[in-house]
Amino acid sequence: MIRVAVLGYGNIGRSAEQAINAAPDMELAGVFHHNDCLECIDADVVLVCTPTREVQKFAAVLAARGICTVDSFDIHGQIWNLRTALNPVCLTNKTVSVISAGWDPGTDSMIRALLTAMAPKGLTYTNFGPGRSMGHTVAAKAIKGVKNALSMTIPLGTGIHRRMVYVELEDGADFKTVEAAVLADDYFAHDETHVIAVDSVDALNNVAHGVNLVRSGVSGETHNQRFEFNMSINNPALTGQVMVSCARAAVRMRERGEYGARTMIELRPIDLLAGETENLVKALV
Amino acid sequence: MIRVAVLGYGNIGRSAEQAINAAPDMELAGVFHHNDCLECIDADVVLVCTPTREVQKFAAVLAARGICTVDSFDIHGQIWNLRTALNPVCLTNKTVSVISAGWDPGTDSMIRALLTAMAPKGLTYTNFGPGRSMGHTVAAKAIKGVKNALSMTIPLGTGIHRRMVYVELEDGADFKTVEAAVLADDYFAHDETHVIAVDSVDALNNVAHGVNLVRSGVSGETHNQRFEFNMSINNPALTGQVMVSCARAAVRMRERGEYGARTMIELRPIDLLAGETENLVKALV
Repeated sequence: MIRVAVLGYGNIGRSAEQAINAAPDMELAGVFHHNDCLECIDADVVLVCTPTREVQKFAAVLAARGICTVDSFDIHGQIWNLRTALNPVCLTNKTVSVISAGWDPGTDSMIRALLTAMAPKGLTYTNFGPGRSMGHTVAAKAIKGVKNALSMTIPLGTGIHRRMVYVELEDGADFKTVEAAVLADDYFAHDETHVIAVDSVDALNNVAHGVNLVRSGVSGETHNQRFEFNMSINNPALTGQVMVSCARAAVRMRERGEYGARTMIELRPIDLLAGETENLVKALV
Repeated sequence: MIRVAVLGYGNIGRSAEQAINAAPDMELAGVFHHNDCLECIDADVVLVCTPTREVQKFAAVLAARGICTVDSFDIHGQIWNLRTALNPVCLTNKTVSVISAGWDPGTDSMIRALLTAMAPKGLTYTNFGPGRSMGHTVAAKAIKGVKNALSMTIPLGTGIHRRMVYVELEDGADFKTVEAAVLADDYFAHDETHVIAVDSVDALNNVAHGVNLVRSGVSGETHNQRFEFNMSINNPALTGQVMVSCARAAVRMRERGEYGARTMIELRPIDLLAGETENLVKALV
């Protein structure tokens, strides 16, 4: 049994715990909080379910102890930096960190890589939603006069998105002033954005999300090869499950001596799955 | 430059040649026919584009010379046997054979594996077409009174398919007799099948194909996670391109000392792609 611990117990940490308990080859090695003693964690793998900006700090401490880690670091422009920072720690301490292991970055990344291998020339568009954007929600909440907010991402195709911003106003706040501040914010100024006042943001709460990923490209000399991937999912449940599947891959890679920090496009799909190679090949190939 | 040769010059061999020529990191090391001297092939990788039943014989001879091979062996029930036969040859001769590298088996297999990792419990249905089925076409051609035939696979959902069989009759053949023979054939007896007489099968010829692959499953304890992959493609062009991308993976695996016969679910997506790790991670993750 692979012993998997959870560090951080928000939406994703709770979902990850459920996925560990559902896995036939894993047991829960404990749930830990940000302020707990990291030296006290005894596990084969730790799922780092902290806020994204704290991932590197925690993963580096755990990797230095030779423990495998998995995170769902999701700032696309900084993923290579995270890999570069953790890779030498993993090599020195003979362990594996799987980074940015969620659905985007994560499984969407694997699909983008696969579609590029199938049609090397062409365009891929990743369309997100409908679903809540955490970054935009946080930006809307920070605006003066906003008590609570929810920013929904609506896909319009070709990677263009509409922002539907639901705001619960503080007593005495002026809607028109808040609306103007949202529309002027750099998070919203570049997209079609609609601001709507509601009595309760909590009443809208829903962790549903989705993706529509399309590629049209060229295989060899043949144009008009068309591919599409769609999903409609519970966001933290999928993220937690993907992290747990990557925990299995991390342990297998460490067993084979393939140390280092790796993104999901650097993992073999079979390593994500419970079971023997023969059975998996017979069932899935 | 990776030196890639093509063995067998039918639809797939021709498409593979085009994909080699389009690849920035490859050069064509020759096109060879079934009866050519295998000992004369000088290449890093050979794409075995022969009929499926001849793949094992040719791949084993080439692997014994330490050459990497890629095939698109497509008899689903015999893939594990092929892997078992080629694996010791690859291990002994320190080389890599990527087997069953097309779109199904192949890239569809990678997607099935990935979706299983995202929602381990649930059902996946792979719906093929509309497109020509080679196996069913050959079965229809073998029927007495049939001069030429084309069997189209039409997806009806949940893995159920309709067979549309277009037959060009020999002079004097009776349509009703041919129709009854098609419907009684084991290839067609279990599916909804329609037989249609046409003047020219050649006039219907089209290498378009498609897939609709759906999974509904459970991530952790969360049900109703829904995934769908669709594609509409030129069949030999995609198969040839996938084989060429797998040739790159085979060479990289051999360079790392990861010898053996492997299916596509055992490959890292990044190994399929031209370019450096840093650029690929930045572009795709």
